Amino acid sequence: MQSLTVIKIGGNIVDNEGALTAFLDTYAQIQGPKVLVHGGGKLATRMANQLGIETQMVNGRRVTDDAMLPIAVMVYAGLINKKIVAQLQRRGCDAMGFSGADAQVITSHKRSVKPIDYGFVGDFTPKDVNKTRIKQLIEIGLCPVFSAITADKEGQLLNTNADTIASNLAVALASYYEVSLVYCFERSGVLQDINNENSVISTINRESFNQLKNAGIIADGMLPKIENALAAIDQNVKKVCIKKAEHLLNEQAGTTIQL
Amino acid sequence: MQSLTVIKIGGNIVDNEGALTAFLDTYAQIQGPKVLVHGGGKLATRMANQLGIETQMVNGRRVTDDAMLPIAVMVYAGLINKKIVAQLQRRGCDAMGFSGADAQVITSHKRSVKPIDYGFVGDFTPKDVNKTRIKQLIEIGLCPVFSAITADKEGQLLNTNADTIASNLAVALASYYEVSLVYCFERSGVLQDINNENSVISTINRESFNQLKNAGIIADGMLPKIENALAAIDQNVKKVCIKKAEHLLNEQAGTTIQL
Repeated sequence: MQSLTVIKIGGNIVDNEGALTAFLDTYAQIQGPKVLVHGGGKLATRMANQLGIETQMVNGRRVTDDAMLPIAVMVYAGLINKKIVAQLQRRGCDAMGFSGADAQVITSHKRSVKPIDYGFVGDFTPKDVNKTRIKQLIEIGLCPVFSAITADKEGQLLNTNADTIASNLAVALASYYEVSLVYCFERSGVLQDINNENSVISTINRESFNQLKNAGIIADGMLPKIENALAAIDQNVKKVCIKKAEHLLNEQAGTTIQL
Repeated sequence: MQSLTVIKIGGNIVDNEGALTAFLDTYAQIQGPKVLVHGGGKLATRMANQLGIETQMVNGRRVTDDAMLPIAVMVYAGLINKKIVAQLQRRGCDAMGFSGADAQVITSHKRSVKPIDYGFVGDFTPKDVNKTRIKQLIEIGLCPVFSAITADKEGQLLNTNADTIASNLAVALASYYEVSLVYCFERSGVLQDINNENSVISTINRESFNQLKNAGIIADGMLPKIENALAAIDQNVKKVCIKKAEHLLNEQAGTTIQL
């Protein structure tokens, strides 16, 4: 099986011109088939503020209401996606931007309004990925770049979690490729001691995860991240890495979650 | 040679929800390979106004300055493009959205600042179209949907005239297909009497164009449109039609410019 790298970047890179440039320089150097997924960062919220649209929050999460949806689509699938694609092309990487609607690569469904109505938010599973179409596009030499926008069967655009897009794509494409999924993170990896960037835990598997969780070393926001990584491994993704973007080409850096 | 239809729609359709829905219903029914090019309409200007960005005009044309460019990219390549793509997918048409940067299908260059500086505006010729890539994507069953955004070799995004994109794509793809280029227009076609919608001139060639021009029947904004259409014909496009969107499936409707 051929190798494929799926990389997810978030707001800490997308919002920072210098970090984004450095990331794209590195990304363009990655050999072999690759897929990039980018989150939106804070630009959509800033744009909404400038337009006088109030950001509704529930349980610390933003609600994508009627007014917010077009902003998310414009900023994520428009401005950020096209900027990244054009800059990758400049670097000799044959990038092609996607929302889930394009070539119907992902079909999502609107999240239930119960227990909490998050508005126009889309969920999907690896089965909802048009993996043969994506494979076909990769085989003709294209490097897909996904924004965090999908659509349902009715053509309703939906705001979608970028981490979920990355892991579902990785799982779906594991039918065809030996997939490495990389989450670019603001820290050097999963840390033994949260105050020490040199205390990176180099590998985690299901067993060591349970030990680290019980010892309280892995806690809070890191728990679902590792749970999701282990779920991807259980669905045939070869490995999941959590590392700093600047260590992307260093195979030894960061935390690797594997069997 | 296989037939290919290239259709351009402008603000009169893009800005009008009902007209857009009707157009997409019809477009989805067109058989065979097809390419859609959409202009931006007034949404970008409205968005700029809401954001307190002043629209600079020179000779009645908008200048795409530093502040306007991201708005154009967001609205054209983001909101409008993804809305159209998702709605075409819903109708069973396997649409895929493009800026020129995506898959490097078009490489433009920034227009000279002399005699007039229009800012971040891109120009290109049919030679700058990556026609083999577009053909490849059409052959796997995709229906490209182009927004009026391109990029230069340096990855600079540029606002680009949608009529030009449509005609350059038509000319470039005429190497592989028997191309019909259709401009959806607010009138029924080129009119003998501008006050009579029933006075459509059904066919125009170079000779009859010169007569109509000399007689003052074709004048003002219609002159460059027909000149451009004749230029496309001279470069092997089979025919250019100017008609109302609602007459898209009626082969007899509108004005046809051909040899």
